[in-house]
Amino acid sequence: MDASSPQNDAVLPQVLLLRPSALTLPFAAGLRAHFRLLDPLDSPEPAHSFLSLRCRAVRALLCLFTPSLPVKAEILDLLPSLELVVVSSAGLEHVDLPYCRRRGIAVTNASAVFCEDGADYSVGLLIDVMRRVSHGDRFVRAGSWPVQGELPLGFKLGGKRVGIVGLGSIGSETAKRLASFGCSIAYYSRKEKPHVPYAYYANVHDLAANSDILVLCCALTEGTRHIINKDVMVALGKEGIIINVGRGALVDEKELVKRLVQGEIGGAGLDVFENEPKVPDELFGLDKVVLSPHRAVITPESFEGVQELIIGNLKAFFSNEPLRSLVQYE
Amino acid sequence: MDASSPQNDAVLPQVLLLRPSALTLPFAAGLRAHFRLLDPLDSPEPAHSFLSLRCRAVRALLCLFTPSLPVKAEILDLLPSLELVVVSSAGLEHVDLPYCRRRGIAVTNASAVFCEDGADYSVGLLIDVMRRVSHGDRFVRAGSWPVQGELPLGFKLGGKRVGIVGLGSIGSETAKRLASFGCSIAYYSRKEKPHVPYAYYANVHDLAANSDILVLCCALTEGTRHIINKDVMVALGKEGIIINVGRGALVDEKELVKRLVQGEIGGAGLDVFENEPKVPDELFGLDKVVLSPHRAVITPESFEGVQELIIGNLKAFFSNEPLRSLVQYE
Repeated sequence: MDASSPQNDAVLPQVLLLRPSALTLPFAAGLRAHFRLLDPLDSPEPAHSFLSLRCRAVRALLCLFTPSLPVKAEILDLLPSLELVVVSSAGLEHVDLPYCRRRGIAVTNASAVFCEDGADYSVGLLIDVMRRVSHGDRFVRAGSWPVQGELPLGFKLGGKRVGIVGLGSIGSETAKRLASFGCSIAYYSRKEKPHVPYAYYANVHDLAANSDILVLCCALTEGTRHIINKDVMVALGKEGIIINVGRGALVDEKELVKRLVQGEIGGAGLDVFENEPKVPDELFGLDKVVLSPHRAVITPESFEGVQELIIGNLKAFFSNEPLRSLVQYE
Repeated sequence: MDASSPQNDAVLPQVLLLRPSALTLPFAAGLRAHFRLLDPLDSPEPAHSFLSLRCRAVRALLCLFTPSLPVKAEILDLLPSLELVVVSSAGLEHVDLPYCRRRGIAVTNASAVFCEDGADYSVGLLIDVMRRVSHGDRFVRAGSWPVQGELPLGFKLGGKRVGIVGLGSIGSETAKRLASFGCSIAYYSRKEKPHVPYAYYANVHDLAANSDILVLCCALTEGTRHIINKDVMVALGKEGIIINVGRGALVDEKELVKRLVQGEIGGAGLDVFENEPKVPDELFGLDKVVLSPHRAVITPESFEGVQELIIGNLKAFFSNEPLRSLVQYE
């Protein structure tokens, strides 16, 4: 029997879907086999009336990637029965977490699936900046090797002091990898983590002053917006390197660009930017930066993992079993 | 007193220096403080008469990088007192090792210094090929992100089967690093290594058939020339990836280029080529390759380490102490 037939649909649990308008729904078959999806983008009605008229009984909301409607009070107020928000990304800046906590709405995310990809990529960006991998590739493709001979040397990873900003799942996996390269690891987070073998700094400025490299993998919140400001960059120093696989707005991008152009910082590997997909033009001519189109946490393998985790969380919720990746409010 | 003054020079041990003609002698001051250097390139005499007339008493030869005269029988026959060859590189293909063994000449190399850089770089190339880091950088710099939107996805490192060809110092350090990414490691070498936690294959074909990725870090010898031939590439398969930080001639380059162009192999990260600095033009247009101008084992930090190791080996030799990095003949 067809899983999407009306008879079957009627007995499946309802899930409200919020997604980007440009997105072809991934995992569609997998989701429709288990849930009846309510999608405002499938309806000719304005989104607000769709939600207030058709979703009063909805208990679970699935939020795919960066949805066209952010999961904020204005939307959540229209959903009086809501108990669960399932998010397909690692970041949660499009979800009003304090509001969810107040109303006792559980939130799950997918950082457990994406953290390995994110850590692999942050290490890849770091090696690339330190050892000039992309720069060397440009040099060879341009036919410069037989003509110019030598590329400026890069730097060795071993012995370098890496400061991880945000020791969550991506940060922890990054630290584990970089330890195998002989880097020494320290970190900043709001609270010191128990049972962690790395030095803790209670503020980012002190971490920067004692690091050769900063790797940014924390969430973007009002408290972390522009956490890497001018003072932190000065503390990191002229040879310092910044890797950002978190969110663009963690960094004062104008200040970073200015310092890169003026040689007041050593280099940067940037997967994220303040106004994506806009990347500051001044960076295009610099060999000490590696620019990446927000790809750190996406591979086909992690897409499969996300589908499995999303469905697992929703099934657990409707069966009154423990959620697979509940976000802990701090 | 000036270390290079004639009085002092006369009492210093003599070291014959072979170097590339284009090379400005690095570490010059450090070497001249301890040794009297005989350099055929400093003399107007032809090299052969310089060696046969002035070097009959020479006991130690220092061979910097790829010297203009290869250290083969023709040269070594002119040096009847030779007991030691100190090589500044990791590779030894420019040295006639069987000849040295027959004459009881000790050989030292610098792979202990270069192996960490080499391993860092091989991992960097692998992440770059798998996750399209250089490709993404090209994409952003070309201004394609706001226009085209998406780059094809790369692949996750975790769970991939990596076959290391040559588990020497670079291979072992590469394996250690990739284990922290969740890769499963196997290797080929002439003999199985004791006390190694990785699966051993007695031939490269079987290793390739059981690997997603091959990382080449073995020495180039007559036995390893074109060790990665058509059969091995077929065994590795259409999605397979080859990383080469060893020597270009380990691979049948023509065959590799053909397979990359025809989509019969997944990708490649190449630091070395058969006719450097010539790189096959067909590779310049391919996004699934990362091209690098033979930079894997060079950083300022390793240059310092090499100087220290070279001087340490020569001092040990002239003091009858154990050599620091003696090459073991197999």
